[in-house]
Order: sequence, then structure tokens, then C-alpha cells
Amino acid sequence: MGPGPINADPRVLRAMSAQLVGQYDPAMTAYMDETQALYREVFQTENEQTMLIDGTSRAGIEAALVSLIEPGDRVLVPVFGRFGHLLVEIAGRCGAEVHTIEVEWGQVFPTSVIVEAIERVKPALLAVVHGDTSTTVAQPLDGLAEVCARHGVLFYTDVTASLAGNTFRTDELGLDAVTAGLQKCLGGPSGSSPVTFSPRAVEAIERRRSIEAGIRAEGDAVSAHPIRSNYFDLAMVFDYWGPRRLNHHTEATSMLYGARECARLLVEEGVDDAVARHALHGGAMLEGLRGLGLEVFGDTAHKMNNVTAVVIPDGVDGDAVRGELLDDFGIEIGTSFGPLHGKVWRVGTMGYNARRDTVLTTLAALEAVLRRAGAPITAGGGVGAAYDVYADAGRGAGAGAGAADAAGAADSADAAGGAV
Amino acid sequence: MGPGPINADPRVLRAMSAQLVGQYDPAMTAYMDETQALYREVFQTENEQTMLIDGTSRAGIEAALVSLIEPGDRVLVPVFGRFGHLLVEIAGRCGAEVHTIEVEWGQVFPTSVIVEAIERVKPALLAVVHGDTSTTVAQPLDGLAEVCARHGVLFYTDVTASLAGNTFRTDELGLDAVTAGLQKCLGGPSGSSPVTFSPRAVEAIERRRSIEAGIRAEGDAVSAHPIRSNYFDLAMVFDYWGPRRLNHHTEATSMLYGARECARLLVEEGVDDAVARHALHGGAMLEGLRGLGLEVFGDTAHKMNNVTAVVIPDGVDGDAVRGELLDDFGIEIGTSFGPLHGKVWRVGTMGYNARRDTVLTTLAALEAVLRRAGAPITAGGGVGAAYDVYADAGRGAGAGAGAADAAGAADSADAAGGAV
Repeated sequence: MGPGPINADPRVLRAMSAQLVGQYDPAMTAYMDETQALYREVFQTENEQTMLIDGTSRAGIEAALVSLIEPGDRVLVPVFGRFGHLLVEIAGRCGAEVHTIEVEWGQVFPTSVIVEAIERVKPALLAVVHGDTSTTVAQPLDGLAEVCARHGVLFYTDVTASLAGNTFRTDELGLDAVTAGLQKCLGGPSGSSPVTFSPRAVEAIERRRSIEAGIRAEGDAVSAHPIRSNYFDLAMVFDYWGPRRLNHHTEATSMLYGARECARLLVEEGVDDAVARHALHGGAMLEGLRGLGLEVFGDTAHKMNNVTAVVIPDGVDGDAVRGELLDDFGIEIGTSFGPLHGKVWRVGTMGYNARRDTVLTTLAALEAVLRRAGAPITAGGGVGAAYDVYADAGRGAGAGAGAADAAGAADSADAAGGAV
Repeated sequence: MGPGPINADPRVLRAMSAQLVGQYDPAMTAYMDETQALYREVFQTENEQTMLIDGTSRAGIEAALVSLIEPGDRVLVPVFGRFGHLLVEIAGRCGAEVHTIEVEWGQVFPTSVIVEAIERVKPALLAVVHGDTSTTVAQPLDGLAEVCARHGVLFYTDVTASLAGNTFRTDELGLDAVTAGLQKCLGGPSGSSPVTFSPRAVEAIERRRSIEAGIRAEGDAVSAHPIRSNYFDLAMVFDYWGPRRLNHHTEATSMLYGARECARLLVEEGVDDAVARHALHGGAMLEGLRGLGLEVFGDTAHKMNNVTAVVIPDGVDGDAVRGELLDDFGIEIGTSFGPLHGKVWRVGTMGYNARRDTVLTTLAALEAVLRRAGAPITAGGGVGAAYDVYADAGRGAGAGAGAADAAGAADSADAAGGAV
């Protein structure tokens, strides 16, 4: 129940144990095509160039940035948490002239502040994290695409922490590049990064196309300003995933099986229903933590559905509580980074773990551990408040989420056997 | 039975279906430590800095090169196949001044030619592929370390295609950096790259240490010449795998389970016994292909145990034969790249597929398909020649390999269910 990686859906793990097939086996290339189509639904996009980068979500970020940024380009990064700093860091290593605006961790930017910065900096690229797990809040991204288009700015976001747990529509938001990971609300393991690129982003990347020696044919492109990375050269990655199937890396077969199954599960459930499920169980966790008497951190109006941060009470050893929860109850929660390290706990309700049983169990266990730690808590207040949320949902719009719960319960034997 | 990826060992697939644990769960960090120790045995090294890069083997290559090469450095690459060109390509993108020497594909360099080039070019780094799957031959690497040390040259090789199927000892060869992949003789899926670095390489990398903003503490390093990639910044990767456990990427848990199981299997069998098994079955395949009347490609004195290239007979449609083998017999073999594309077939005997049953079945199926294609073949010559090799081995040193076969046979039900 940490901020991710979390327990994978057992169906994803079973998919990953399927035997390998050859890189150009028709079964494999069909799986690749199918995975592209599935992630178009997940990202809510028509983008042809939608695929996986073989690496963790950080690999997807670097692939997008190194392929979109030419050394010397101005890049604007609004920073509201640890992962904004990561975008600054990676863009800097790509040779960008990086400009930042910052707000206090836990807050988001008013759209007008980002618009003002775009008009002032006139960057080639606006790079912004959607949901920053370090602070639990998500930056609203609507209203930025028009401004970007007007100034010829490419618009990129990372949705690793938010995708599938919060409403996100690539094409409606007018994004040019989006990167993600499996280990949060998608319910899979870290190690594969779904990405999508608009025709405008593809055009920028194609201008730098340079096919490597060893597989280059007569007439193939050799750019004067090739992308600085070979592994993350998206022009070559497009060729590998496209009809030409030009050899680049050897696609990570088991991770592809896993990523495909994550998307199949999500599309079966329905992307909007999955978001509603995260809203329900995240809401129950939020009220439960408040019901225990804990103070919620950050701007809750912009909090992601799938993770909640609470202030560690005065006089309580945060790491000792986390250790006891893990050792005695088999439940992991997280702390955070930088200015929040040791100041907050982060509790996730995401992917396969966004379920009623996990929420109630976590609240009951946390109450027990906090009581032993001598923290002032409201007896029964956590589970009680969560039950109230479920009761309200039962009277309202919660029917879809309830069905998802039942499906989850059927697999709970797998979930219980979590540790390996 | 292609040049890789090949069928994974069923134990590796089972390991990958284990439930995830948190990134800093003591079970997870213990697995990471254990994986490092196992790969020290696999690489035959004492190097502290031995770990996995989260990506395909190409990711391991890029991590080594981008971390070792400072822009402007001279790099020497002896090219004897497609993957030599890949090293040239990646080193070039890292900003190196790349010098090459070349031999015809299918041949290797006499050591003296590489030594002469080192003395002439005086590179900062010698980067050479050990076994190049595109041509099936392995470059002898002994006798180079002393020359490199004398001239202050870092000595790097990629052993993706050769490791665990051919004798390879990192420390005995005096290598400073070695990268690999799971999808060949290690019997796992593509997507994780085992790597190891000598203290001398670590020193070169540490000089460029630059801890990223967002997790940087007072007094932490910020280099003036940071490594150009964040994802492949080995100084940060070392911190993540080391006792400080400084957050970098989120380790790809399922791939780690798989990589760990690949190494466990190899260490259980014994690295030398695994090499002997590859020599036995690779030898049987080689003689079998010759027995069918096919011409073996390349310098067989330097051929890797785990892959054999044969010239496609005149008048035979190479792709049609491969298609028929796959569709009608469920057996995949490969062609090659560049000058060899459509000229040779490559037949693998590697990892879990280096077994007597796979060798004999492949030879029988190939005979049937070649006969239908109208190629002049020796009836029964393939299986017969392979049987002769096994009979000779049975009278000699083949006992260990026989035991490995028996263990493989127990799992053959899994192998038969190969396609997904």
C-alpha cells in the first residue's frame, strides 16, 4: 500500500510467465501491434506512435526528452515536487537551457502562472509532471495546449503516477508527448514504459533521424544532428515497432506480455470505471486517515485518487511505524523525498491494490501500530470513516466499483501470497 | 533455435511470475545483493560493481559507453560484424572520436593487429564485441589487457551473445567493463542487462559523479562534466545498488527475479559445465548441418559454441525455408544482417535450447523442409552426424552434459508448450 511499485495483478504475473517467442515471430509482431492499439485506448489518443520503451518509467522520460530536445533548446519545467526536479535534471543532461518555475511542495500552479512563463521563456518544450507522487498532487493540464501551439512549443507530460487512476485524455489535452510506467495504477511491474507521441512530436523527431551503420541501407537517413542516445532514439524505435520492423533493441518479450495484460485488464474494466474505482477507494483511504485523527498533507483539491500523504504525528518515529506495519502486518507504506523525507507517510490505493479489503485492512493495522507507538488516535475512526464512504457510494454511483471489488476478491488468495 | 532470444528456462518464467515487493522492502534489497553476488560468479569476477541495468543488452552497452566516454575521447573499435558497428554508433553518439579497424565478416583479428592499433590510436577506451552473433565468431581477448594497462586504455567488451556458452573470465582477461543480456545462453528474456566494472572503471566513472537535484543532500557531488545520460549514469546506479540505496530508477522487480533465476540455474549447473554443454550440443549441430551437406560460414576455429551459420544453398529461398520450419514444425531459425542478410541461416543451440532433443529435432525438420525445397541434401546425414558426436562424447567427457540433459528432459513438457 505504498506509493508504488505495488502488488501486481495476478493476471499480469501469469501473462509474464508465458514462454518466449522469437523477435520477428508473427505471434510476437502481432502482440506488438495489439499492445500499441491497447495503449492508444489507455492514453485516449489516436497517435500512431504509441508503444513501449524497454526500461523503467525514467527510461520513457529520457527517451522523450533526448529525442525532442536539441542541445541548446530552451525547456520550461514547472516544478512542484521531486519528479519536476527529475525533468530538470534529464533535460539538462540533454543539453537544454532549462528554465523553471516553482511552487511549494504539496501545491500546484494556477494555469495562468504557467501561461505567463511560456510567454516569457518561449521554450521549445514545456515539460511538466502530471501527478507527482512525492507530493500526491496532480497539476491541471487543460488550457495549456492552445498557448503552446500558438508559440510553437511542444507539450510533454509524464503520467507514471497518475495514469489509469485519474482522468487523463491525451488528445483532449492536446499533448505532444506522454510517458508512463506500469508500476502504479496499471498494476504491473516496473520495467516497461508506455509512451505516445503526436504527429507534431513525430515530425520533430523525424528531422533528426539517423539510421545506424550495420543495418543502414542505400538512401537511409544520416542526420547531421543525430539524437544523442542510440537506445532512446525514438526515430529508430518507431522503425522497429512500425511495418519496416528495422532491428533496434530486442524487445523485452516478458515485459511486453505484462504491459499488454495491464492494458487488457484496464480496457476490460473500462478506463473511466478504473478511475472511478480509484476515486472510491482513494476517497475511503483519505477519510479513513482523517478519521484516525491524522493530518492530510498538501492541496487535497488537487490530490491524486491513488495516493494520500499524511503528516507523521509529533513524537512518532515514522520509520519505526513503517517497519512494524511491514514486519507484523505485511503492509508497506512509504515516506517521501527531499523536504518531505521523514515528515509524511504516503499511502497508496492503486492498481490491483485499490480495493475495499486492502483499504480497511490498512486502516485497521495502522490504528494498531499507531496505538502501540503512543500516538493520539481516534479508536475505530479510520475503519469507521472508510465504511461510511463505502456506504455513501453504495447509495450512489458505486455500483461499477463494487463489481470490480468482487472480481478482485476472487483473486485475493494470490494477493495474500504477496511476499516472495 | 534461432540466434536468440530463445525459449526461456521454465524455472526463469516461474520466478518471474512471483508477486512484487516494495522497492526498499528488505526482501527486495536482499534479492538485489544476492543477484550481484551471483553475477560475480557468472562473470568470474571479484568486481564489487556488478549489477543489472534495466533495459535490453543494448541498454547495458550504452550505460557502459556513456559513463566511460567523455565527449572528445578517442575510442578504438575493432569491427568484425554488425555489433561492432553498433559500438561505433553508440560511442559516436556519446561524443567520442571513434577509430575503427575492420576484418571481413566471419573472421576475427589476430591479437597483434589490435595491439598495433592501440599503440597507433592511443585511445581512452578499447571497445570490442566478444562474440558477434551476426557472424557467429568470437574475438580472442587474451593478451590485450597488459597493452591497455600500459597505455592507460580502459578495456570494454560486450558478451551478450557469448556469456555462459563459451569460456569467459572477466578478471583473468583483465577487463574493465563487461555488459551482457539474458536472452542467449543465460536462458532468460531480453530486458535486463547484467554488467560488471573493475575498480579502474569505477574510478573513471566516479570522477564524473553528479547526484541529481531532488534527492541531493548537502555536500553531495555535482560534476562539471556530468554523464550525458541520467538513466545510464552508472555513478547513480552504483548508489542505488550500494548500501546507500539512493533512489534512482525503480528497479524492474520481475526482470530482477528472472535475471536472478538465470544466474542461479547457471551457478547450480556450474559455469564450466554449462560451457561444456554448449560445446557438446553446438558441436552436434555443427556436424549435423555439415552432414546434411550444408556449407558452414565463417572461421569455425573461432566459432561460438552456441550459434552456427550456414550458407543458404543456391536456388533455395531462405525465407521460405524459415517460414516452413516455423509454421509446420514450430522451429525458428534466423538469417543475418547487412552483407549476410539472405545469404546465411543462423541456427542457435543456446541456454535452455542447448539440448540433445532440440538438436536432433531441428536437424530432422530441416532435412524435411530442404527436401521439399529441392535442395541437394544427404538423406539422414544431419541426424546421423549429430548422433555420432553424442556417441563420441558418451565415450569421453560427456557425462556432465548428459546429466544436464536429463534435468532438461524433466521440464520438456514446458518446452513443448512454447508458443503463446
